[in-house]
Amino acid sequence: MSGSTLAKRLLEGDQRALARAITLVEDDRPEGWALVKEVYPHTGNAAIVGFTGPPGAGKSTLIGALTRARRQAGRTVGVLSIDPSSPFSHGALLGDRIRLSEHFLDGGVFIRSMANRGALGGLSEAALQAALLLDAAGRQDVFVETVGVGQAEIDIIDHADTVVLVLMPGSGDSIQALKAGVMEIPDVIVINKADHPLTNIAVREIRAVLSLTNLDQSTDDARRSWSVPIVKTEATNGKGVDELVEALEGHRAHILAEDQLAVRRRRNLRNEMLSIATARMRRRMEEELHGDPEFQRLLEEVVQRRLDPASAATLLLERSGVSGAGTVG
Amino acid sequence: MSGSTLAKRLLEGDQRALARAITLVEDDRPEGWALVKEVYPHTGNAAIVGFTGPPGAGKSTLIGALTRARRQAGRTVGVLSIDPSSPFSHGALLGDRIRLSEHFLDGGVFIRSMANRGALGGLSEAALQAALLLDAAGRQDVFVETVGVGQAEIDIIDHADTVVLVLMPGSGDSIQALKAGVMEIPDVIVINKADHPLTNIAVREIRAVLSLTNLDQSTDDARRSWSVPIVKTEATNGKGVDELVEALEGHRAHILAEDQLAVRRRRNLRNEMLSIATARMRRRMEEELHGDPEFQRLLEEVVQRRLDPASAATLLLERSGVSGAGTVG
Repeated sequence: MSGSTLAKRLLEGDQRALARAITLVEDDRPEGWALVKEVYPHTGNAAIVGFTGPPGAGKSTLIGALTRARRQAGRTVGVLSIDPSSPFSHGALLGDRIRLSEHFLDGGVFIRSMANRGALGGLSEAALQAALLLDAAGRQDVFVETVGVGQAEIDIIDHADTVVLVLMPGSGDSIQALKAGVMEIPDVIVINKADHPLTNIAVREIRAVLSLTNLDQSTDDARRSWSVPIVKTEATNGKGVDELVEALEGHRAHILAEDQLAVRRRRNLRNEMLSIATARMRRRMEEELHGDPEFQRLLEEVVQRRLDPASAATLLLERSGVSGAGTVG
Repeated sequence: MSGSTLAKRLLEGDQRALARAITLVEDDRPEGWALVKEVYPHTGNAAIVGFTGPPGAGKSTLIGALTRARRQAGRTVGVLSIDPSSPFSHGALLGDRIRLSEHFLDGGVFIRSMANRGALGGLSEAALQAALLLDAAGRQDVFVETVGVGQAEIDIIDHADTVVLVLMPGSGDSIQALKAGVMEIPDVIVINKADHPLTNIAVREIRAVLSLTNLDQSTDDARRSWSVPIVKTEATNGKGVDELVEALEGHRAHILAEDQLAVRRRRNLRNEMLSIATARMRRRMEEELHGDPEFQRLLEEVVQRRLDPASAATLLLERSGVSGAGTVG
């Protein structure tokens, strides 16, 4: 399939073309980047919702239930599930993915799990491109699921129009992180597994955090006038999912009414440009550090405590061809 | 005070010189970088321990208690407390810092809190430099405290010889993150606030995670043969602190015996070089994006969906003077 045939079929919403296209960006193939470039003018129509939160909170099950509700309302859905990676364990989310399996035969639902290949910045870059491909393929709702730790995941959330934090009763650490201002206040908070006896305590704690949080200081106009809803759900039996749909639609209506969707997207696209550029730069330096004897010598000087890391970084940038690198810092 | 006078006094362990030097690196002043360069050959002697974990787990109180124990053993201590930042709330750790106040008058203890100034990568860079300054000033133990979320904090932990994860009963999210492989297994795990009735449940859960974690796959030789201790502490009354000291000394003896301290430090210094170089690159692009009309035009093209973010990133890198940027990706 030539590049422009693939683009044409993708824009028509063809599932196989979409799957092929995402594989191309995931594998970091030049055809993948060229494809995104070609279809990019057709993006910007999907409602992109990012789901974050600790592992075990039930994000995948919730997205499964939400997908069912959106399909019943006649909308097409794309799901990107971003797997965290660690050198120590893999495939932790496999069980979660299976929970989405009821949708595998529905042509109106496209589900893709993306794993971190270990390439620095690679997953984040690829996921952002994949979201654009789903958008171009006409998916009306795009759900991006990530685990709420680590910069790669935060970058992906940066791409969303609406950010949902999914917690469960017992999410003490996340609530503390919200309270301490370490974690940003999302647009919507879900307490999933709400049949748990500690649910109402969690809701009260979160409400207390929200009442203390001064969103008036936010630079984002839409945040200042938005009251963050706390939605209780039981994703496994669908309870509360309608309320979540309402909250999501409410947030979308709010940012549209406040003329903030464009502002938010401009900020997101700006961050995306910078993230891609930074990731490429870092990857290139990694490669050079790996393969170039001069870089190995530089590292050895640092290890032997003869050259400090910051001076070595300056030399690294100079050698990577960054003009005037010596004047930075 | 001239640069080399400052360096001389710093190397003699002078507290005021140390405070001044850290301010220079925190403010990103060229004299600060020059100073680190000058004193760098005198670093590498401190035992650097990084403390991470959710807010509220009591890291500062624990470090306070640990500092007392190390002082009683006649060692000099430096503490770097890295404040998380958020556009929505500030100074959440102020209360924690006060808990370290008993040590303010002890010349053998140097405590410094560093706040994220909002400069991208700035805090991480500055904190790493500050740790080197404490090392050069002859502090035998350097404790670096961060909140365990976000890339900047992870970068700082990268600098430690020993990583301690501090949890409390109710740290369900963190335990899930360990279990899912999202959070790396640290060298030592502390359950603080161990007078809580749920402590033993937390210990059992963590023990189960550790028994499932296959450290044999680790590329780090020292990890393979190290059994991660779980230490119960009550930092407010000092219970368990002696056991923590033992665990820290045990880990240090282990990596020295396995000849892994040098391997770990080489990896950390390599990451440090790359992080500083990447942060500078990103900051430079940020500045250019802010001030250069050509960059503003580029962003506008992206916002208008005429130019995709990845192509814009390529142009951004080219304009930033990265030779051959077009060939990357």
